[in-house]
Amino acid sequence: MSNHSSKRSLAIRSAFLDFVEDPFYIPEAECVRYWSDGLLILEDGKVKELGAYEQLCDRYSGIEIVSYDDRLIVPGFVDTHLHFPQTEMIAAYGEQLLGWLNQYTFPVEGKFNNKAYAQKVAGFFLDELLKNGTTTALVFAAVFPESVDAFFEEASRRNLRMIAGKVMMDRNAPDYLCDTAETSYQESKHLIEKWHKNGRLLYAVTPRFAITSTDEQLRLAGKLLEEFPDVYLHTHLSENVDEVAWVKELFLDSTGYLDVYDRAGLVGDRSVFAHGVQLTDQEFQRLSEARAAIAFCPTSNLFLGSGLFRIEQAKSMEHPVKLGLGTDVGGGTSFSMLQTANEAYKIAQLRQQNLSPFKALFLATLGGARALSLDDKIGSFEVGKEADFVVLDVRSTPLMAFRNPIATATSLNELADKVFSLVMMGDDRAICATYVAGELAYQL
Amino acid sequence: MSNHSSKRSLAIRSAFLDFVEDPFYIPEAECVRYWSDGLLILEDGKVKELGAYEQLCDRYSGIEIVSYDDRLIVPGFVDTHLHFPQTEMIAAYGEQLLGWLNQYTFPVEGKFNNKAYAQKVAGFFLDELLKNGTTTALVFAAVFPESVDAFFEEASRRNLRMIAGKVMMDRNAPDYLCDTAETSYQESKHLIEKWHKNGRLLYAVTPRFAITSTDEQLRLAGKLLEEFPDVYLHTHLSENVDEVAWVKELFLDSTGYLDVYDRAGLVGDRSVFAHGVQLTDQEFQRLSEARAAIAFCPTSNLFLGSGLFRIEQAKSMEHPVKLGLGTDVGGGTSFSMLQTANEAYKIAQLRQQNLSPFKALFLATLGGARALSLDDKIGSFEVGKEADFVVLDVRSTPLMAFRNPIATATSLNELADKVFSLVMMGDDRAICATYVAGELAYQL
Repeated sequence: MSNHSSKRSLAIRSAFLDFVEDPFYIPEAECVRYWSDGLLILEDGKVKELGAYEQLCDRYSGIEIVSYDDRLIVPGFVDTHLHFPQTEMIAAYGEQLLGWLNQYTFPVEGKFNNKAYAQKVAGFFLDELLKNGTTTALVFAAVFPESVDAFFEEASRRNLRMIAGKVMMDRNAPDYLCDTAETSYQESKHLIEKWHKNGRLLYAVTPRFAITSTDEQLRLAGKLLEEFPDVYLHTHLSENVDEVAWVKELFLDSTGYLDVYDRAGLVGDRSVFAHGVQLTDQEFQRLSEARAAIAFCPTSNLFLGSGLFRIEQAKSMEHPVKLGLGTDVGGGTSFSMLQTANEAYKIAQLRQQNLSPFKALFLATLGGARALSLDDKIGSFEVGKEADFVVLDVRSTPLMAFRNPIATATSLNELADKVFSLVMMGDDRAICATYVAGELAYQL
Repeated sequence: MSNHSSKRSLAIRSAFLDFVEDPFYIPEAECVRYWSDGLLILEDGKVKELGAYEQLCDRYSGIEIVSYDDRLIVPGFVDTHLHFPQTEMIAAYGEQLLGWLNQYTFPVEGKFNNKAYAQKVAGFFLDELLKNGTTTALVFAAVFPESVDAFFEEASRRNLRMIAGKVMMDRNAPDYLCDTAETSYQESKHLIEKWHKNGRLLYAVTPRFAITSTDEQLRLAGKLLEEFPDVYLHTHLSENVDEVAWVKELFLDSTGYLDVYDRAGLVGDRSVFAHGVQLTDQEFQRLSEARAAIAFCPTSNLFLGSGLFRIEQAKSMEHPVKLGLGTDVGGGTSFSMLQTANEAYKIAQLRQQNLSPFKALFLATLGGARALSLDDKIGSFEVGKEADFVVLDVRSTPLMAFRNPIATATSLNELADKVFSLVMMGDDRAICATYVAGELAYQL
């Protein structure tokens, strides 16, 4: 019997934490599941069962057990917005959005018509994600189809559930980075046919943002969404004040930035809009109605001085918007979703709002999965979901060990405190291991 | 001839960077000194000479040379505000200043009447500073004299140039943490006599802030400054909106928060005020006139939601105020001055201001030394200064190595870019070694 036809089983023993509901709307104690000594049973890369070790150990006595003592295992992190071609230009100095694009981003992205180069960067990028516990991401490639092929080939080699797409950009950018409305349509279509649902891979139609697309290009993006109803739409929205003003100038007949996308048919329940810092209340409401998602990118919003995202508006009771966290590398300054949650907390604090540790972790896991309409497949340890998860160490540095003398929480309050220490102080050193579809993919 | 009477010499070969002027006021190229291949000559713990390796190597051919290839050496970092007793409560969740003090800080500080405990924490704290490249700090102890003894004993063992003092606090705090105006005066006086200028140690008269001191206690703090004109004054000022409002209520006859300190004689050229987020223009002007200093604490100001410090107001041409960076552990979330500079940059960006890499590094080194009136002793490689310095690695993680393929800068622009990558992406892993008074005190 070959390895493929047999059912491959494995059990992981450790402390486990995940979410079954959204703690922004339901009392936290009802949202969080926690086993201080749990056993996770994996079969064929999926979750077969999770429960208390004591209750499950007899039933699964025949299975190999990998134990992670003094560790905390959570679902793999979901990064809802970043750019793989910008890896090498992370932390580029001194500009706000539009200047930063012209001075740093465009020249770097120009290198990604070279497939071999794109492949090298894509591999490095994916390894950085794994090193930081991120198992799923929604990713901008460059304008060149080769850059998309390179990315998906590398993601496929690692068996990762990844969403990406070719940038569509037919104006207000250097010639060497521009496609045309028609070529962007044809190339995207070809890439969708090649990669969408190829293994764990999914495709996102990816106009960069309203400024760099003509009406015609946006219309054709909408046509792709009609033709392929389960692909994603991924773009930027209302990040920066000057950007919003420019969009208004470019689209005089539009009622606002979101409307530019809306009238092209780009605002739906598989649409993910990065940033949304400058959104009006009406635009939040429209996103809610359309069941579209926002990727909140705190390190980028601070680094580029874009402003303070209104989390409480996105997570309002009346008009809830699906919300995930994005690192937005290279506008963001870190691949770490922990570091990203750190700055999300600080942005909330500046606005006299409160982002609890569980809310932050929810955004980085199940919340992100919901934002990407992938919560039937990933984001928690629900039975049958793909087994992407992260092994965390709350004592990963001398300072964290000093702050957290005991690793494993025995109450929800203790757990919240330990999760908070990970959010505020954790980095890639807190990621002991990352599993992808039940297989060890990274180990510190 | 004993080791003590002989002159102990050592030479360090590497790239070196320091400042001779303030880049907030003078063009950067005139402020920065840089040797891509330099030789630093140390004698008896002080800088004897620094220059190009080629020019100096013959003259010092007899001296042992330690080489740091592909590294960048800068003066030791100066942390102008933090609390050693708060080490264990770093990253405590969910409060703004006043709630955070009551809920977390006061209970923890109560433990520091135990000398042995205080000593243990002080040792850990100082090792964390060294691990992060910080060689001088202005430090709050607790209200208990034992906590000051513990701190200075540990600092003395490490031969560090440190400034600290006993907290003075006679109201609006739990009884177990309160002294009286008179006991705080007597205890502080005794500690000054014991520790001020004892080796490299210096004393700071340390009323916590106006809220927890009576007028009488502040008056006696002023009396200490009169009696000991070269000790420091270290306190908090205008951090948080609610705090400022409470100060106004408590001191009805005062014209403002700074005035409360001023009329007690606490605003002079050896006074260091932490935060200053809510200062008025008039208060900035008064600080300038008095040649007093502000410790800007970005990670803390964000973490506690205090607000965005106005760097450009402190560094204005008309009314310049001495300015340093402070980690403010445990209100701050990191011991790293690099991480602190990262968030200072982000605060500046949010305010549409620009904190260049050299300005940030200046604040962390010579700027901090000037804020502490220690620029005759530390903060640069000027001949005769104490040889406290840090060996940095701009390729300390795979991501930083990917961003910085070549370690050593050959132009000022390249150097600025590498320093910026340290500021935005560096942490304790970028600190390869820390030297204190010419001796290796920490190695990664």
